[in-house]
Amino acid sequence: MNYQRFFQEAIDQLHAERRYRVFADLERIVGSFPRAIWRSGGDTKEITVWCSNDYLGMGQHPDVIAAMQNAAGCMGSGAGGTRNISGTNHPLVELEAELADLHGKEAGLVFTSGFVSNEASISTIGRLLPNCLILSDELNHSSMIEGVRRSGAEKKVFRHNDVRHLEELLRAAGRERAKLIVFESVYSMDGDIAPIAEIADLAKRYNAMTYIDEVHAVGMYGDHGGGITEREGLADRIDVIEGTLAKAFGTLGGYITGTREVIDAVRSYAPGFIFTTALPPSIAAAATASIRHLKVSGAEREAQQRQATHTKEVLSGAGLPVMPSQTHIVPVLVGDPELCKMASDRLLAVHGIYIQPINYPTVPRGTERLRITPTPFHTDGLIDGLKDALVETWTALGIPFSDMRKPGIEKSDRIIPLVVPSAGG
Amino acid sequence: MNYQRFFQEAIDQLHAERRYRVFADLERIVGSFPRAIWRSGGDTKEITVWCSNDYLGMGQHPDVIAAMQNAAGCMGSGAGGTRNISGTNHPLVELEAELADLHGKEAGLVFTSGFVSNEASISTIGRLLPNCLILSDELNHSSMIEGVRRSGAEKKVFRHNDVRHLEELLRAAGRERAKLIVFESVYSMDGDIAPIAEIADLAKRYNAMTYIDEVHAVGMYGDHGGGITEREGLADRIDVIEGTLAKAFGTLGGYITGTREVIDAVRSYAPGFIFTTALPPSIAAAATASIRHLKVSGAEREAQQRQATHTKEVLSGAGLPVMPSQTHIVPVLVGDPELCKMASDRLLAVHGIYIQPINYPTVPRGTERLRITPTPFHTDGLIDGLKDALVETWTALGIPFSDMRKPGIEKSDRIIPLVVPSAGG
Ligand SMILES: Cc1ncc(COP(=O)(O)O)c(C=O)c1O
Ligand SMILES: Cc1ncc(COP(=O)(O)O)c(C=O)c1O
Repeated sequence: MNYQRFFQEAIDQLHAERRYRVFADLERIVGSFPRAIWRSGGDTKEITVWCSNDYLGMGQHPDVIAAMQNAAGCMGSGAGGTRNISGTNHPLVELEAELADLHGKEAGLVFTSGFVSNEASISTIGRLLPNCLILSDELNHSSMIEGVRRSGAEKKVFRHNDVRHLEELLRAAGRERAKLIVFESVYSMDGDIAPIAEIADLAKRYNAMTYIDEVHAVGMYGDHGGGITEREGLADRIDVIEGTLAKAFGTLGGYITGTREVIDAVRSYAPGFIFTTALPPSIAAAATASIRHLKVSGAEREAQQRQATHTKEVLSGAGLPVMPSQTHIVPVLVGDPELCKMASDRLLAVHGIYIQPINYPTVPRGTERLRITPTPFHTDGLIDGLKDALVETWTALGIPFSDMRKPGIEKSDRIIPLVVPSAGG
Repeated sequence: MNYQRFFQEAIDQLHAERRYRVFADLERIVGSFPRAIWRSGGDTKEITVWCSNDYLGMGQHPDVIAAMQNAAGCMGSGAGGTRNISGTNHPLVELEAELADLHGKEAGLVFTSGFVSNEASISTIGRLLPNCLILSDELNHSSMIEGVRRSGAEKKVFRHNDVRHLEELLRAAGRERAKLIVFESVYSMDGDIAPIAEIADLAKRYNAMTYIDEVHAVGMYGDHGGGITEREGLADRIDVIEGTLAKAFGTLGGYITGTREVIDAVRSYAPGFIFTTALPPSIAAAATASIRHLKVSGAEREAQQRQATHTKEVLSGAGLPVMPSQTHIVPVLVGDPELCKMASDRLLAVHGIYIQPINYPTVPRGTERLRITPTPFHTDGLIDGLKDALVETWTALGIPFSDMRKPGIEKSDRIIPLVVPSAGG
């Protein structure tokens, strides 16, 4: 039995399917976000990141960095234990209160990541409710799928954002059975938004519990950054609101908010919460600073929406196949995994632009894309530069434009593809 | 259907079994570790933590804190994305190289926690090996059990540290079947050590793969802090060595090290690694600083061993029921969940000493205990104070001493039990 062979075969398979990932080694530069230093081989080069999930650039906000540095200086670099084993640090207690307030809920609970918060919470809720049926949107994130699996509960998948289908499943289950609907507010690969009000109506009608993942919306939507549920005045109609501290809030960690009972039950029963070291005080303090800033400042949200809209307009105007999106996410269709990877490699090597390729299984085959996330710090000038680089790349690689009549540059300008296998996402 | 009722019932059950946990709100004080500020109700009080898993006090080491602050200042407070989505920061790349070197392995992979590293790695390895049989020590940590479950592989549990039983199971499975042995080096609740050499021998004889959790040993054993496998010269005989950055290294995160193939396969296939935001550069930089320090400095390890040994001697000398332990962990038997909780509450309220109670399910019923972890910063004076406080508490609550002839203080000094339900672990 040669064990290494099995691992090698698994890797070979990814290469064969053009799904093998090489991570770009990046060093962010505070003060000049979205610029970063890219290391490849022995070389370093300054590039522009166009696919960060630090959506508002809060990871470089002076208040956030200062909070992190101060807490590290006063309380040290780690929590020193699980929540129970002396790991409950005061900044974490404050953070949980802040999060409950953000979503207008009784209580909040912080986990080491958004992934863990979904997995631990959904699996625990699903296990505690007797004979629970989980109704799950077909495009739910991996962390939610893992949570559903670990719950051991029966699962039915409803078609993406399809409330008719959801209603059929709810009706079939009946009012008396325990039912948990799990879905996202903003779906991060397409940038579309769930019909939250309709789902809440159905949940009421059929007496189901609701769990929403607002990972790609918290900090960014609503007057205080409470997400799409805040913007639409629906937070009190959803039982559990989940979010991350690692995207718009610019730090690390995940959380749920809800009634005192559900939070206490997850706190008391979820192995993924109980048996792991707590977040360091420095991270908790930084997250709280970020949330507090975004509760009172709408400037970042407005600037981001403006730049995202402008990016869509400029890229569409150049004939690039911008996929429809209701949010800050700007997906541009490539439609082929190999071309998608080549486009990403070329953007980085030739244009100093980092956008990692999004291939199967993250998105369905045939919809491979570049997923662009403009932040308040992506200026109009940078957007123009991005457009030029994309047009050059689309032309050089022969990727279809949405409108072949205005490819931006002439056919005769086509450039021989340049393959940089060691770099790119 | 009243959903809150189910959650309330689940919580009520914990209260009934005396297993409901209240987390102490602590604020560590850099420069005076293991002292911390305890908040309870509106009050604050300075106390001594005697149960930290920051085993060497590295969480307050100036080099570690400086590394964290500098990286936050230069690179920001977060990673900004998953490893693939521009989240691979340069300090993380360096950290992975440092970890591979620490264990003498080809490659390393960092996760957001030790919990996630076990769950994601064991489940992925178990899934990639065809028809794999996982052989798991009965006292393995929750995170390993979750990994085994998620693998979907067949599992056989062997009696704790029992190589005869393990051999029976290996023999029954046969040489040809894929087999993964998962175990820990130091078991954290009893402080005993696995027979690693014998397990490696068996693995060789029966052609099994080996996976060891060195979470409670890395940084603390071996000339460079490579754990028990380093101390015993066995690192090259174990296929995968897993550890945490959140205990002796004083920060946050977990990791595995092994051959290039196994690391690349886990990197490429584990959802818990792929679909979550990477650790911030500040955490990675702090961890690297800590590992580098402990690679060259043995002073912390020696001081910790000295103080742990001294604590065992002093407590045993006072007739306290110190459980046998081969390591730095000092468990003291209480044997009853309610008394254990009361002892912890009394130590905190009366003596300003924080040691959270360890009850079922973390340990078997009837073996409820206080788990004491002396660090280099617990001086001889603090150890004497601990002894006095424990003797007073044992006497006041009527907890059995190991030797009733020397209870330390007279029966007539017994104090009426003081119940502080809102404080304690
Ligand atoms: C919808 C969704 N939920 C949860 C997560 C996980 O959050 P985190 O990165 O904090 O683990 C992600 C992505 O990372 C996500 O896209
Ligand atoms: C044996 C063991 N493995 C893994 C873990 C998890 O490590 P982490 O705290 O880094 O999640 C723990 C405790 O927390 C543990 O005791």
